[in-house]
Order: sequence, then C-alpha cells, then structure tokens
Amino acid sequence: MPKSVNRQIILKRRPQGLPKSEDFDYREVPLQAPKDGQILLRNVYLSLDPAIRGWMDGREDSYQPPIPLGHIMRAVTIAEVVDSRNTNYSPGDFVMGLNGWEDYSISTGTGFINKIPADNQLPLPVYLSVLGTTGLTAYFGLLDVGKPQPGETVLVSAAAGAVGSVVGQIAKIKGCRTVGIAGSAEKCAQLVNTFSFDETIDYKSTDSLEMEIKRTCPDGIDVYFDNVGGGMLQAALNCLKDGARIVMCGAISTYNATEPVPGPANLWQLLVHNARLEGFIVSKYASQFPEGVSQLADWLRDGSIKHKEHIVPGLRNTSDAFLKLFSGENVGKLIVQMD
Amino acid sequence: MPKSVNRQIILKRRPQGLPKSEDFDYREVPLQAPKDGQILLRNVYLSLDPAIRGWMDGREDSYQPPIPLGHIMRAVTIAEVVDSRNTNYSPGDFVMGLNGWEDYSISTGTGFINKIPADNQLPLPVYLSVLGTTGLTAYFGLLDVGKPQPGETVLVSAAAGAVGSVVGQIAKIKGCRTVGIAGSAEKCAQLVNTFSFDETIDYKSTDSLEMEIKRTCPDGIDVYFDNVGGGMLQAALNCLKDGARIVMCGAISTYNATEPVPGPANLWQLLVHNARLEGFIVSKYASQFPEGVSQLADWLRDGSIKHKEHIVPGLRNTSDAFLKLFSGENVGKLIVQMD
Repeated sequence: MPKSVNRQIILKRRPQGLPKSEDFDYREVPLQAPKDGQILLRNVYLSLDPAIRGWMDGREDSYQPPIPLGHIMRAVTIAEVVDSRNTNYSPGDFVMGLNGWEDYSISTGTGFINKIPADNQLPLPVYLSVLGTTGLTAYFGLLDVGKPQPGETVLVSAAAGAVGSVVGQIAKIKGCRTVGIAGSAEKCAQLVNTFSFDETIDYKSTDSLEMEIKRTCPDGIDVYFDNVGGGMLQAALNCLKDGARIVMCGAISTYNATEPVPGPANLWQLLVHNARLEGFIVSKYASQFPEGVSQLADWLRDGSIKHKEHIVPGLRNTSDAFLKLFSGENVGKLIVQMD
Repeated sequence: MPKSVNRQIILKRRPQGLPKSEDFDYREVPLQAPKDGQILLRNVYLSLDPAIRGWMDGREDSYQPPIPLGHIMRAVTIAEVVDSRNTNYSPGDFVMGLNGWEDYSISTGTGFINKIPADNQLPLPVYLSVLGTTGLTAYFGLLDVGKPQPGETVLVSAAAGAVGSVVGQIAKIKGCRTVGIAGSAEKCAQLVNTFSFDETIDYKSTDSLEMEIKRTCPDGIDVYFDNVGGGMLQAALNCLKDGARIVMCGAISTYNATEPVPGPANLWQLLVHNARLEGFIVSKYASQFPEGVSQLADWLRDGSIKHKEHIVPGLRNTSDAFLKLFSGENVGKLIVQMD
C-alpha cells in the first residue's frame, strides 16, 4: 500500500538562462485517493528530457502549455498502478505516461498514457528510452521526415544523446552511412563502438565544424538530424547535397538563451540545393506509436539497436540531474530511478 | 541581315550592396559569325530578374556560377534566329534561352534554350513572363513544393511581382484563399482587381506585419510562398497553421546586403507546427517544363491567368531598369524591348 505522503518537486520560478537549483522547490503533500475513473500511480522511473526546459518558460506559443509557477514539474514516467477506480487498469499494471516529478501521480488513464505489456521481456527503463518518446522521436523523425535512402549519408548532432544514438542506429539499419557529432573523444568512441557510427566529429576539439563535416561527408549531407540548432545547423547548411532533408528535432543550443537567437545566415543554401528544413513534434504520430514500438522492440531483441541509460537514483536528485542535460555530462538516456 | 556591330553591357565591378550604374560598362564589339553547330540570335526581349543580382556576386556556392568580371551580363531573352549552322534551327525561328545583355548572342542551341512554337497565338513577351521561368517558377514552386489544397490559405510576398502575381492566380485556380503582400496601396488594388487576391497587406503602411498577417489569415497560413526572406519570413513563421509549407523561392530583401543577414530567430515555429521550409531552383523541373508551359498557356488563353509586363525600351536602359527591381518601382514582369 502507498505511504500517506507524496513528495513533489515544483517549479518555483522561471529560469533565466540555464536552470538553477533555486528554480525548483520541494514539498510534501498528503497523498490523495483516486476518484471514480481515476488511477493512482507510483512513479518508478522518470525521464529527463531537454524539452522539459521549454515547458519551464512562460511562452504560450509552444506545443505544450507552460508549467504554471508553483505547480509540479512535468515528465514522462513509468509507473505502477497501485489503486484503480478505472475498469481499464488494475493494481500491478505498469504504464508509461506524462506525469510529474513526484512519488505518486493521479491519472484519468486517458490522453498520453500507455500500458506496458505484462509479458514483455525487456527492462522497464527501455520504455522511457528506445520504446518511449525518445525512440519514437528518432524513429518517426528519421524515417517519416528525413526519409533516408540506402547509401545516403546521415549526419546526426547530439549523436551520443538519447535520441541521436537511436537515430544513428536506425539509419544504419536502413543502409545509410552515419556520421555523428558529439562533445568528447569518449563519446565519439562510444558512437563508433556501441552505436555503429561510420564517422564521428568531436565538435569541442575543432576550430571549423564546417570543415569537419566536409571531411566526413565528402559527397555532402543527404539527411541532417538536428537536435542542436544554432551554429551547428549553420555549418550543416553549408554542406548539403542536392535534395537534402534537415530534420529539426530540437535546438538544445538555444533552450537556455535569454535573448532570441538569430537563425542561420545561410538558409539560402536550402534554395541552392532544393533542400528542406522540416520540424516535427512526435505526438503527431501518436496513432502510429504501436507500430513504432513494435518495430523498435524487435530491433532491441535482435540486438540491432543498442541502448544506454544514465540512471540517477532518488527523487531529491532530479533537479541536479536535469542540469546535466545542458552541460553534456550524460551519455544516453537520462532517467531517475525513484525511491 | 544583322549589323556588323554587337552592343554589350558587361559587369565592370562587383556591386557593394545595391548595384549602381558604375558597376556596368558598355562596349561595342565586332559581330561574330556562328561556327559549325552554332546559331546566331538577335535578342528581341530581355528578362530582368532579381536572381541576376546573385550572379553579379563572386560567390561560388550558388546554383549558377558568378558572371566573371569584364564579361557580358546574363539574362534570359527571347531571340530570333538570324543565322544557323545547326540543323535544328532555321532563320526566322524564335527561341527563349539564357543569353546576354547584348544585341546578338551566339548559342549552341543546347542547354537552357527552347524553341517558341511558330503557331502560337500569344504575344512574345509572355514567353518571358507567364510562359518563361517566371511562370514556371510560380507553377512548380507552388504546386510541387507548396502542395496547396482547396480551401487552404496561401500567403504570397512580393505578390505584385512577376512570380508572385502568377502564384496567387494559380492558388486561386486550385481553390485556395489568397493573401498578397505588396508595397503600396496601388499595388494592393491591383492584387485584388487584376490578380484576384482575396486579401492584401500593404507592408509599407503597417507597424506590425505579423498582426496584419494574423488579421488576413485568421486560421493561420497553410502555404507561404516567400520571395522576400528577412523580416517578412520571420513574421510569417509566427502565423503558421499545423502542417504549413513555406516555399522559399527567393530572398530579395537580402540580395543587396553587404554583411551576412541572420536568419529568423523563430525557426522553432517549424517544429511547433510540424511545418517545413523548402527551397527550390526551377531548373530542377526542366524535364517537366513542356507540361508546365502547356498548362499555363491554357490558363492564359481562357483568361484565368492575367499577366502584366513592365516593358522598358532599349538596351542602353537595361541597367537602370534593373535597379527598379530593388526599389519596387515595377509592377509585373520587367522586360527590356531591344532596339
């Protein structure tokens, strides 16, 4: 049975630039019981994603409403149903859904929530990484937006990150040549040894990212899967092959900016190369998630997709762990294992 | 028979910013005779397009090589074959092709050149406007890149210009709602009265282009056909409907810039709206030009496409006329009628 107290981390103030510990607050509240139609969830694993940074801002023009000040921080979690007043769920079920940075969440069991099959033979954290929105973002973004063809060159930024490492491996499965950009020699080694990238670029050890891209993509880029934006996007734009597709998945380089960041000065290259820059939000593909999860699970089971999670223990460490996303300290999917 | 002298306008120096008269030079050279396989063309009409400005720069990374200093200025012309040593052409044929700012051009008759059907019942200048690269740019850019659907809202910048006015009319034929941006009340009136736009925006008489776009596109933009770039692109990005397509046809606002112009600070909106920004060069569609010309000619004949040419007489006025493109003085396709 659940305890009587629910520990929560809330948004205390909107960050200016990089989030700080003082932007968060901790509180303990009495545990609520589920009402008719609701389920009570014990959060077991909590996913930390760069997108959460966007939800901490007050902007109304994004794809998710901002987290109100004083409200619980939002995250995708894996949770166990501990009490149910909803006929679709029973205690002991495991679900993946958009919940909060807290021990227990209450859900209506509708909206963005999926039951994890009881007979699965995969460890629970992969439902936040390869089989969660992370892997689905890689899957639909690369295949539906990027449309890579066998033999093409696929460049991936933040390639050692949770999304990038899956993108590179799917591109490889589809017969592409893969080039990954990461921020250390250690990460680059992992790109090759674990995630099967053909070439890597350590952006922190080069003066000219553009020359490094030209060296590793001598025939030009067919697909650039961009998680970073900013100067990295500008460098890639100068190395496009005719008909190139740029998948705009994220722009982590700009998330903590306190002023609007100008776009690349060379968007013109899209015209010169009959190329496109296309953004997407993975929720667009919600109706196809089961197909994506099924394919990704097959690739996990047959070993053609390797995964790496960076697991941090304890709710109280969540906000510090979150900051690692922006300093590049984590390798692979950053997950909090709840107490 | 041709005269013995060929008058030419050449590129004297590369413009800094807006081109000036002093960037051009005039010379008279002896007329050459065509060699085996060549044809001698008398240029009758000469097309002045914003793209020529790009060819005057020294940049090697564009889709056409730069015009070398001291060489003839380049333009698409309509010309009469006056001498032929090529079995595919006879004197008296009319052709449209990429030639120079000169009385006579020599051509191999291959590459970018098309014979104008002798039995056409359309005035010759329309082969530079609606039936030339201008109209084909509008046709393939809107239909193949923008993919407008009936009932959608299509926003067009530089809508009174040669490309924009055709884009708006094709969008209307396809059942779209059309909104045109132009730079004077007179041009806006013409957008409605001649080119059948549903709504217009006079960008020179508003403090907030974004608010004007929101007013005229209350449900958001489905397709933005962008000839301008810069701040107009940034304003449009803030008004996208989910799944919007931005057709990047040109960026006349940046052609005369002396420093790199930063891109829009809100490219992020592409992600939020599952939208794309796609560039294209009309030559990509070269193999489909006959289909495009045939369709456009039908629309011209049945009156569903109106056209407007701004015709300037005399080779010696060509460079001054060219500058009008950037001051917004011309309405419709700018054409020089040769002497």
